[in-house]
Amino acid sequence: MPSLSTSTRISRTPFSTGVESAKVKSYTVYNHTLLATEFKSVVDDYHHLKGHVQIWDVSCQKQIRVRGKDAEKLMRLISPRDLTKMSLDQCYYVPFIDKKGGLLNDPIVLKITPFEYWISIADSDFLLYILGISDALCFDTQIDLPTIYPVAIQGPKSEKLMVKVFGEEISDIKFFRYKKISYLESKLLIARSGWSKQGGFEIYLNQPEIGMLLWNNLISAGEEFNVRVGCPNLIERIEGGLLSYGNDMSQENTPFEAGLGKYVNSRDNFIGKENLLVRPFKKIIKPIEILGDIPVCDRPWPIFAKGKSIGQVTSAALSPDLEINVAIGMVDKVLGKPNSTVEVETQTGIRTAIIHSNFWT
Amino acid sequence: MPSLSTSTRISRTPFSTGVESAKVKSYTVYNHTLLATEFKSVVDDYHHLKGHVQIWDVSCQKQIRVRGKDAEKLMRLISPRDLTKMSLDQCYYVPFIDKKGGLLNDPIVLKITPFEYWISIADSDFLLYILGISDALCFDTQIDLPTIYPVAIQGPKSEKLMVKVFGEEISDIKFFRYKKISYLESKLLIARSGWSKQGGFEIYLNQPEIGMLLWNNLISAGEEFNVRVGCPNLIERIEGGLLSYGNDMSQENTPFEAGLGKYVNSRDNFIGKENLLVRPFKKIIKPIEILGDIPVCDRPWPIFAKGKSIGQVTSAALSPDLEINVAIGMVDKVLGKPNSTVEVETQTGIRTAIIHSNFWT
Repeated sequence: MPSLSTSTRISRTPFSTGVESAKVKSYTVYNHTLLATEFKSVVDDYHHLKGHVQIWDVSCQKQIRVRGKDAEKLMRLISPRDLTKMSLDQCYYVPFIDKKGGLLNDPIVLKITPFEYWISIADSDFLLYILGISDALCFDTQIDLPTIYPVAIQGPKSEKLMVKVFGEEISDIKFFRYKKISYLESKLLIARSGWSKQGGFEIYLNQPEIGMLLWNNLISAGEEFNVRVGCPNLIERIEGGLLSYGNDMSQENTPFEAGLGKYVNSRDNFIGKENLLVRPFKKIIKPIEILGDIPVCDRPWPIFAKGKSIGQVTSAALSPDLEINVAIGMVDKVLGKPNSTVEVETQTGIRTAIIHSNFWT
Repeated sequence: MPSLSTSTRISRTPFSTGVESAKVKSYTVYNHTLLATEFKSVVDDYHHLKGHVQIWDVSCQKQIRVRGKDAEKLMRLISPRDLTKMSLDQCYYVPFIDKKGGLLNDPIVLKITPFEYWISIADSDFLLYILGISDALCFDTQIDLPTIYPVAIQGPKSEKLMVKVFGEEISDIKFFRYKKISYLESKLLIARSGWSKQGGFEIYLNQPEIGMLLWNNLISAGEEFNVRVGCPNLIERIEGGLLSYGNDMSQENTPFEAGLGKYVNSRDNFIGKENLLVRPFKKIIKPIEILGDIPVCDRPWPIFAKGKSIGQVTSAALSPDLEINVAIGMVDKVLGKPNSTVEVETQTGIRTAIIHSNFWT
């Protein structure tokens, strides 16, 4: 594989030296920022993640900070999800859309105060959409990307490690809730969340200068739990059905097509509501099992049923635990029924595949 | 260097197989798309670009297409540059800004019809800002990213190659103008433009299925001109003072600070005008010569004058022709005067540097 050229346009993070020391093998670029994708090997990293605990530099999950008198008004104008009952320690998964109902990003929103929200974004410059809305309507808001850098602690032993470093109050944090926890002389926002199905936490570091201190503290405290530096794992996230914006869905898709319809429940007249509710709902995201050997899924693979194109696979990998190729694809709702057998066209040839109903975890 | 992980989130292009056949060594990711950065070596590619002709896959310069009844109204609402005299074969370099006057992108705008503009973007999802404005104000516009993939022909022999493939009418295309030229059964939009100072053209392919046919045609016709597959060259673009959005300037900067003040001449009340014109103008982009050995500029390098921080270097490379390290930086207008000697803090130590007045070509 060709190497990744570095430049100031692709940001390093407060944890980059930690990632480098752990001998990162591959990166991707996510929100103009380095994101590791492989250390020992994707398969070795996968087994370790499922058995132990890993520390991930996910600074690329940039925080859009929306503040000001009109912050809530702006958030409610753009959010398909009802934010009215959101409490001050809560994290919401929100599928944001444009006026036509097309997905623009699927971030986690954190409510910090009634006048401040953080939007922990997937890979698109979603700040620009919010800024466009606010600039056009002359809202009283400040919208920026503060120096906040999330680090994720993921894996079955993550709670033990977190309690050891931050104390017993970690255990009181419920899923998709956060607490502000004292650390050295600062307060760290810590949420029970993260892009794996193995359990874990995300620490929102707001003082980059103590980043490596925190990192090294986690590494040394984690020795007894067999901690390793890791990263989001392609195989594990496909098994668990964790979608990746830009891979598995895009502006071409509605939240309904991405299987995120349950998050569309706002009673406000949010932008896009009218069109979204009348837009045809013809495709749906599905788990797919592909038979035979498969190459790297570096381009969409068309799916055919009886010779007719019915969708595409967008993520795929061999699962060592399941001993099958697990994949995510968007298929025609009628022609891509669960249990049906289809054909998938990879760059190295056609493979038989089966559409499933449920992801594997 | 670690490798770049591929996934469907980082798009391949109609020319990717051509880039791979030419044994690309490194990539960057630009607008969620693969962009080659090195073939033989950055230095070898540099000498070849300055002496011959290269074919570049610059599909990552995505086209935002703004169409509809309100297209011109929308463009004039967001453009700091006067678009009223723009003719139908013209390309304009436009520094787009937000309401505070901060740069959002520095694309080339092409006027296709009075109701259709293409915005050939640098590395940010600028579509989202335009869409936010249009969605908020309920403009009658369609804003999308059509399947248009630019390929650049750059270098002193580019005109000879283009004339050989497309005919004599190529020579009539003036700088930053375009023509629609017949090719096979389609019409290709061809402009005299490109991200080098060696002269050349950009072909806006609108039929991806003939991409490799066009590519191979250019390669075989170019044999007599010593054509090679290439890419934007770090050294050549710094020598020539070609700025890179995300490297050399960002939303933190105004067009004035980026040296693009001459493009701020619209008489309309474009968004950001009021704030831009009163915003302090304290920093300015400058060519900088750095003495001694320098590492890869993969992070901003602080610049100090008499111990005081006065700015940062954002791009740097050793120029084989000039036999100096050429660099681009943003410095304090008062403290960073031309010919002054400053200190630059790289990741491998402090270097002496000289601020210049003019770029090197």
